[in-house]
Amino acid sequence: MKINVLDTTLRDGEQTPGVSLTKSEKLRIASKLDEIGVNIIEAGSAITSAGERESIKAISKEGLNAEICSFARSVKVDIDMALECDVGSVHLVVPTSDLHIKEKLNTTREKLLSQAVESTEYALDHGLIVEVSAEDGTRSDIDFLKKVFTETIAVGAQRICACDTVGILTPEKSYEFYSQLKDLPVPLSVHCHNDFGLAVSNTLSAIRAGAKQFHGTINGIGERAGNAAIEEVILSLNSLYTDYETDVKIDKLYESSKLVARLTGVYLQPNKAIVGENAFAHESGIHTDGIIKNASTYESITPEILGRKRKFVLGKHIGSKGLKKRLDDLKLNYNDDQFVEIFKKIKYLGDLGKCLSDVDLEVIAEEILDIQTETRIKLEELSIVSGNKVIPTASIKLKIDDKDILEAGIGVGPVDAAINAVKKGIKDFADVKLEEYHVDAITGGTDALIDVILKLKSKDKIISARGTQPDIINASVEAYLSGVNRLLENQ
Amino acid sequence: MKINVLDTTLRDGEQTPGVSLTKSEKLRIASKLDEIGVNIIEAGSAITSAGERESIKAISKEGLNAEICSFARSVKVDIDMALECDVGSVHLVVPTSDLHIKEKLNTTREKLLSQAVESTEYALDHGLIVEVSAEDGTRSDIDFLKKVFTETIAVGAQRICACDTVGILTPEKSYEFYSQLKDLPVPLSVHCHNDFGLAVSNTLSAIRAGAKQFHGTINGIGERAGNAAIEEVILSLNSLYTDYETDVKIDKLYESSKLVARLTGVYLQPNKAIVGENAFAHESGIHTDGIIKNASTYESITPEILGRKRKFVLGKHIGSKGLKKRLDDLKLNYNDDQFVEIFKKIKYLGDLGKCLSDVDLEVIAEEILDIQTETRIKLEELSIVSGNKVIPTASIKLKIDDKDILEAGIGVGPVDAAINAVKKGIKDFADVKLEEYHVDAITGGTDALIDVILKLKSKDKIISARGTQPDIINASVEAYLSGVNRLLENQ
Repeated sequence: MKINVLDTTLRDGEQTPGVSLTKSEKLRIASKLDEIGVNIIEAGSAITSAGERESIKAISKEGLNAEICSFARSVKVDIDMALECDVGSVHLVVPTSDLHIKEKLNTTREKLLSQAVESTEYALDHGLIVEVSAEDGTRSDIDFLKKVFTETIAVGAQRICACDTVGILTPEKSYEFYSQLKDLPVPLSVHCHNDFGLAVSNTLSAIRAGAKQFHGTINGIGERAGNAAIEEVILSLNSLYTDYETDVKIDKLYESSKLVARLTGVYLQPNKAIVGENAFAHESGIHTDGIIKNASTYESITPEILGRKRKFVLGKHIGSKGLKKRLDDLKLNYNDDQFVEIFKKIKYLGDLGKCLSDVDLEVIAEEILDIQTETRIKLEELSIVSGNKVIPTASIKLKIDDKDILEAGIGVGPVDAAINAVKKGIKDFADVKLEEYHVDAITGGTDALIDVILKLKSKDKIISARGTQPDIINASVEAYLSGVNRLLENQ
Repeated sequence: MKINVLDTTLRDGEQTPGVSLTKSEKLRIASKLDEIGVNIIEAGSAITSAGERESIKAISKEGLNAEICSFARSVKVDIDMALECDVGSVHLVVPTSDLHIKEKLNTTREKLLSQAVESTEYALDHGLIVEVSAEDGTRSDIDFLKKVFTETIAVGAQRICACDTVGILTPEKSYEFYSQLKDLPVPLSVHCHNDFGLAVSNTLSAIRAGAKQFHGTINGIGERAGNAAIEEVILSLNSLYTDYETDVKIDKLYESSKLVARLTGVYLQPNKAIVGENAFAHESGIHTDGIIKNASTYESITPEILGRKRKFVLGKHIGSKGLKKRLDDLKLNYNDDQFVEIFKKIKYLGDLGKCLSDVDLEVIAEEILDIQTETRIKLEELSIVSGNKVIPTASIKLKIDDKDILEAGIGVGPVDAAINAVKKGIKDFADVKLEEYHVDAITGGTDALIDVILKLKSKDKIISARGTQPDIINASVEAYLSGVNRLLENQ
């Protein structure tokens, strides 16, 4: 059975405290949502601000396949604002619990009901599709809830939605609750919040109960603990509840997740299901060994269907088979004694709390296998002058193939200046582009150890390199040069 | 009904790719787990490494109330290693699916069964409590699974556990699956993975079905998408499934979460349920307005029960009532026109994609209300010299109450040197301590804008301050001085 997807990343998701998107960012996300195949895009809440209306209007004008929707309270001004944005539909929100009616709105059920009916009529009269949505629906009197739905459907509302606004459903209650609404004559939507970590399973239960559409956000972002994560609902339907399907292209979910994380600044924890950095990463020896023999031993989702790859991570839990595979991938030759030595060294570093990158493994292995790495470019000297009235300036002395190279560079800050100086210094020796510069969040004091990780590209080869020092400038230069040396060596 | 908690943060959690804890870190986490009241601490897997055994042994010797457990495969060497660590119990893992038996272990059901029985006897003979755990239990032949359990129970195993190793259960299947095992004569444990985002709801279903114990990790960390998050299971039992209870102290869950995040380096996404930074944060006008009138309109969990506080965040979704409350909290007096102007300015900045801190609101409001902030300390000049063969050195010229102050400082890097110079310069004027220094992850290029946020303390007042510049040194000094000025003003 086909289930429709209403994506509310640009409304619920943007309500994530601390998130604010510009018009062009909203447009980029909307285009991506359309590309992946969501049926309806809730582009925002038109009443919010002038800028918000500009954004929604721009999305409406984009000629996307998806229906473009605005959130609106059941008041005329909200619908007028939505109309100004040329949307196709409104997600018309009607608080239905006595708590919301009395304490928040200070009104009565009767007044609220007539307001809901009037706004529905008003929106329909102006050509909008109306999805009537019961806010706090799961804490509402079921008879009153049904009455709001039947009376708004009677005047023409095309869809209804019941919201678990504070996330208090369980899978069992969700099934029971949505079952009571499934026989109303228009499609039913489910909208779940994640306060107890149950938004996805509650959404799935509602679909089992008869909901024909679900609301969700990319990465599950949203106010408080967020909303149902679209990617988790969709993969669950795809793999665990195979009677249902959606129009969303699974192989594009990961890139959507990355785009939304980057533009909203809401980065994911590595163990986020489906789209987290570690969702297909394995470290322990038992798991790695199993995966090498047959991936389904420790994977229920094939990373390739998401356009992702599995990743083996080096650490103290590594087993000998996993390590062998890694060394073979690096095309290193070792005898049994050397292997044992490398294995021990990794366990030892792991016990010290060190996490190892591919670079680290190469360095450890090369040391033990006594492979001389040719470091063609060496840093001899680096000097930095900076301040509030000084143009950040760096001078460097590099030794490249025994030739002394002196250069200077300026930048917006001392790191930028130093890297610019290095870039100038190496330009005749290596054709390298800095693809990505990343510093993990620094927490603690001003003397914390700083971990710079960067990606360098030369022709079609991309490598990662790392520098760790308490001085961000030195760490950045160390990482950059170590990457360049490895690129040169492989040429 | 009482449900036991087996915490596996130090084993499954430490298997999170990239995580490696030192002995002292493991000890700190174990003590905290004991303090919050988990019943069993799985301290690690003794076979992993010498350092791992030292850590487990240290935890065993700590005299905690919790039972200390080691993971062990059903082989003699693993049990011997566990014995070396003086643990009280083993989590004895027996892969029971044909996939694992044939493809991973290349053995037969018969051999595996006799191995499981022998290891159980061996562990029991050496005084260990044995929890026999079926790896990939949910993809196993149910009759064979029961056989493994009944035969190991027959020789004395005290507990059994069935693992959903690749996270393929749904709440319905979980209920059905664990129901089939609940009548065996020893307590049944549930162990769920989160590949589809369903670990918590599957754990809850197993408890409803009759499991007497659950396995989980703080923050849900673990291999791939992690394990059931203890805090989500416990809060769900506490609020949604009130027939069940655990010994865990809810008011200590948040501090445990923070400790584990800090020591493992696995930081949480802000919308993580229960313990995420935003779990009790509200931005939108509708929500803030509701919360002010009656918190239960938009909160199903009271933040105080976790020892947390709700947070209102400023952004373009703010409503007028929420803004009024914030301005009143800051004890600012405004007339209606000024209020409208402040409101518009915030919406405008929000549309530009800017997220506002308390500091920003104060600055905007003071500007519009024409409040002259006295900036007692002004930065006149800052010079930095740094490099790879230079001691990072900073000199500053400050104007404090029209007096010129010149100072110099050194540090491990230029930021540290600059802050040290500033600290020396102000020491006669302000008694200020840097409580926290934070830089958000820097992604993009070396010229990215850097946002420094720090917390300063003077007597018992703590304030946040921010500096945003492309130069990390200038941003840090800006943040520091702006914070000191605000502290001085309030004195």
